[in-house]
Amino acid sequence: MNPVIETILAHRSVRSFEDRELSKEQIETIVRCAQAGSTSSYVQAYSIIGVTDDEKKKQLAEIAGNQMYVADCGHLFVFCADLHRHEVIGQMEQADVLPSVESTEKFMVGVIDATIAAQNAALAAESMGLGICYIGGLRNNLPAVCKTLHIPERVVPLFGMVVGYPKKINQQKPRLPIEHIYSENRYPQNESKYINQLEDFNKIVQDYYIKRTNGKRNDTWTSQVAKTFEKQSRMYMKDFVKKQGLNKQ
Amino acid sequence: MNPVIETILAHRSVRSFEDRELSKEQIETIVRCAQAGSTSSYVQAYSIIGVTDDEKKKQLAEIAGNQMYVADCGHLFVFCADLHRHEVIGQMEQADVLPSVESTEKFMVGVIDATIAAQNAALAAESMGLGICYIGGLRNNLPAVCKTLHIPERVVPLFGMVVGYPKKINQQKPRLPIEHIYSENRYPQNESKYINQLEDFNKIVQDYYIKRTNGKRNDTWTSQVAKTFEKQSRMYMKDFVKKQGLNKQ
Repeated sequence: MNPVIETILAHRSVRSFEDRELSKEQIETIVRCAQAGSTSSYVQAYSIIGVTDDEKKKQLAEIAGNQMYVADCGHLFVFCADLHRHEVIGQMEQADVLPSVESTEKFMVGVIDATIAAQNAALAAESMGLGICYIGGLRNNLPAVCKTLHIPERVVPLFGMVVGYPKKINQQKPRLPIEHIYSENRYPQNESKYINQLEDFNKIVQDYYIKRTNGKRNDTWTSQVAKTFEKQSRMYMKDFVKKQGLNKQ
Repeated sequence: MNPVIETILAHRSVRSFEDRELSKEQIETIVRCAQAGSTSSYVQAYSIIGVTDDEKKKQLAEIAGNQMYVADCGHLFVFCADLHRHEVIGQMEQADVLPSVESTEKFMVGVIDATIAAQNAALAAESMGLGICYIGGLRNNLPAVCKTLHIPERVVPLFGMVVGYPKKINQQKPRLPIEHIYSENRYPQNESKYINQLEDFNKIVQDYYIKRTNGKRNDTWTSQVAKTFEKQSRMYMKDFVKKQGLNKQ
């Protein structure tokens, strides 16, 4: 155990913050940490937008399903997969970059680069005693996010991240058994063992909810996941990403 | 500055390792750190495969463009976006999860979940004095990776990660100016300023290469990126991901 591993293992999402803004220095440190991460072939295919304007924060909080902590936090970051930069470079260098820019491969590169940056930012913030929460809820309405933040073609906002001084610290949520996430030399092949692991995990999650809610909630992990997936949320995504000029070919 | 931020800012990719395997305890700590990261709506849509078999390591090193450090490292991880688990859960719970499983939204969730896990793993390893390198080169031939690791439908391997005791430590590569990656309240709107920033960065990258190679290499960042993008590599990706049953609708 060292301070890095301690910070990583202590993670829980924080959704309630003190009314206290991050300093310019804190924001700069967090962004510099984001930038220090690996980037595929050194292409740096992401951008980060900080949101400080009250009206814009309110709009984004509404998009995220009226999660008011999106507005009421120390700082709100939005992480984007960004190939606009590379389209501009194509013009600067008179190079035909568009088939690449529009490819599924480069869209994946953008999502991976942005997420490596984001997780570095998250841990940098947590190491300063701040709390964070990823805001996937922005994907409820990405056209509106793009309008609010003037995001151009070739850029897809992926998620927000709220950062701030924690007011309430939640319990950690249990994770799948390590044997279920990690296997050696091949993908797990024993389907009945695989299902048994899920059923064992269901008991752990059920216990967690019963304790956390004084018995009010007792759903299992698989029932929760099934409900999430039955909902068919954000089915506009394929068309939207294509309209942004990514993941097309 | 604290030990977490120091570790994050000290990152460089390591591609040369001592002939020394990671211990079971090190591997377990790295995977537990991977699991501790955030996961979209708690769906845990990723898997990690560790590769210890010499023949398989050799195959993966060849796929990655004959990068022999892929085989000659302390441990090789492969990170996958994984929606197979959720298809199985659909069967367990008799829920119609397939439209979601096949959606671009859930493919993005898988890529984001896997990458958050991977970056936690990277930092955990680096905090132990180990070096890491992401191996995007596996995407040169994902059908072959899937064959080697028996990866089923609904799963897409995204990248490998080599971890080990560093033999050679490279210099850090410069990053884009912070003002170019990070903006407030809106995407950068001033195109000439934007291009000036890229040109300033070009000088920094050129200096870096001249110093590192004793003048043998002096390309700019934008010329390098233009070349990478002109190549149109991995254009099979869209069809492959679709064939795996993801990013379809």
